[in-house]
Amino acid sequence: MIETPYLLFLGDAPDALAAKVAQGIKDWRPENCVGQFRMEGCQADMKIPDMTLAEAKAAGAKTLVIGVANRGGVISAAWKKVLVAALEEGFDLASGLHNLLRDEPELTAVADATGRQLHDVRIPGVDYPIANGKKRSGKRVLAVGTDCSVGKMYTGLCIDAEMRKQGLKSTFRPTGQTGILITGDGVPLDAVIADFMAGAVEWLTPDNDEDHWDIIEGQGSLFHVSYSGVTLALIHGGQPDALILSHEPTRAHMRGLPEYDLPSLEAVRDMALSLARVANPACQVVGVSINTQHMGDDEAAAYCKEVEERMGLPTVDPFRHGAARLVEALQAI
Amino acid sequence: MIETPYLLFLGDAPDALAAKVAQGIKDWRPENCVGQFRMEGCQADMKIPDMTLAEAKAAGAKTLVIGVANRGGVISAAWKKVLVAALEEGFDLASGLHNLLRDEPELTAVADATGRQLHDVRIPGVDYPIANGKKRSGKRVLAVGTDCSVGKMYTGLCIDAEMRKQGLKSTFRPTGQTGILITGDGVPLDAVIADFMAGAVEWLTPDNDEDHWDIIEGQGSLFHVSYSGVTLALIHGGQPDALILSHEPTRAHMRGLPEYDLPSLEAVRDMALSLARVANPACQVVGVSINTQHMGDDEAAAYCKEVEERMGLPTVDPFRHGAARLVEALQAI
Repeated sequence: MIETPYLLFLGDAPDALAAKVAQGIKDWRPENCVGQFRMEGCQADMKIPDMTLAEAKAAGAKTLVIGVANRGGVISAAWKKVLVAALEEGFDLASGLHNLLRDEPELTAVADATGRQLHDVRIPGVDYPIANGKKRSGKRVLAVGTDCSVGKMYTGLCIDAEMRKQGLKSTFRPTGQTGILITGDGVPLDAVIADFMAGAVEWLTPDNDEDHWDIIEGQGSLFHVSYSGVTLALIHGGQPDALILSHEPTRAHMRGLPEYDLPSLEAVRDMALSLARVANPACQVVGVSINTQHMGDDEAAAYCKEVEERMGLPTVDPFRHGAARLVEALQAI
Repeated sequence: MIETPYLLFLGDAPDALAAKVAQGIKDWRPENCVGQFRMEGCQADMKIPDMTLAEAKAAGAKTLVIGVANRGGVISAAWKKVLVAALEEGFDLASGLHNLLRDEPELTAVADATGRQLHDVRIPGVDYPIANGKKRSGKRVLAVGTDCSVGKMYTGLCIDAEMRKQGLKSTFRPTGQTGILITGDGVPLDAVIADFMAGAVEWLTPDNDEDHWDIIEGQGSLFHVSYSGVTLALIHGGQPDALILSHEPTRAHMRGLPEYDLPSLEAVRDMALSLARVANPACQVVGVSINTQHMGDDEAAAYCKEVEERMGLPTVDPFRHGAARLVEALQAI
């Protein structure tokens, strides 16, 4: 568990895209963001107060989160000066970089000396159990995709935001690095040892109030041969009550697999539902989430309408159109 | 890769069952077994020559394999004396124990000093790639089970033995600790990091002659919620041309999951085949392997006959009846 609120470290981000993680945190958990720390030449701006380390500390920030990725995911000498100063100022550090904080002797030395935490969210911090498959209380929803990177995390965050807005009980449960930095907690599922994947998902989504929804972040695809095992562990460990189908219509082939066509939404529905019912016989597919970022307004609306009629399920781009119809479908089961 | 042949270390095995790993090696790769090393009180016997370390070395043995598990999987002080002496004599060591060889400072010190290898087959020794899904040459068969521990490894070993007997080109590809110790090579799939599972299986079963069969050791079950992700990674990384369904008819519920019934063979067939065809559209289900160890002769024969008629597939207990009919079915595709 990463302590909030955060000071967002944007470093010397060459452009806005490099600060995608910081943007995600600011968009989805603005209440976790006290301010931003920018170095000379930084081209990204979260439109929140620029602060020195001391100012952010005084404003209550607990953790400096590296919200920027530079080429190769490495920690530069210039960054390291700031990170050391932050530890000395009393901040914990959190990072999703490939270059682990813990692999930098300067940082570990100062963290040890000051008693601060280094959170490398790419690495599991827990010894997860083997899954036991026991039915848990509360409700769970999982987005399953035709492919990787089709908008499953955003779908989950949109549903969670809409549920909170409506005063419903909801917790977004991250299973990837960006999601973990956004909420401060979660399981980096792609880095978990095979035998413990489903158990990690059970651990992440424990018993809860009967009217509480865990919104589990989806990963991979049952039809993506590189990562399908991770997806199935999510389905069986998460024992979802509801599935949302996720799709990005302009994808020419499976991500990273030029020889593989995308499956139809019907194929994903049938396969995912059959497998989900092993763990939860009551599971239902309740809606479709389309990532329309590469479409104009009219095209996006027409595409969703076509899918809705074909599938007989509420179909929206929750980031563009809002997630109210998906939440309504979830509340109906 | 573990150097063969082996001297089998039986230690002070309290009974034959404790030496199950040694028995597997002796049953399936007798040519890899130069002799056995037994300590005082050992109650197991592989019916191969008892040898001192020096005798086994002179007879050509390269690796001392720990073929026995004691309570808790630990390395006792009495064992350690023998293991140190073996390293000094010039043997590598191989073990599938939870208590890793590399975690014993005495062993690592002597191994370093003598230049010998410590093989802990529970831990992957390779940085596996991400799966790329590219079609590979040669043929592959995988056993998929209704449950864990229903006889998938034995099915594979029986098919491999029958193919070798018939002079066909075949390689058994282990994906678990016992299988790795039997052949000296393989992938401990349950210990691989999630993102690399399917890639590890691709690495294990590379391009080969068009008439060569990789017999891939199956793991878990698509219907076992604790381990199903491992099974799906095997199916997608292995891109099998043929599947064999494996079942143990006396199982009352899924192993370790008292709330879960076993699926039907039909359900396993349909689910596994649909998923396998994502990676290999030509995949076929060619036979059924029944583990009849808890049945009498007549009962076993009657059960296989009933399944054969119901499924329309050759059905045998390959360990009891031989694997010739399964090999015939594989050769026919």
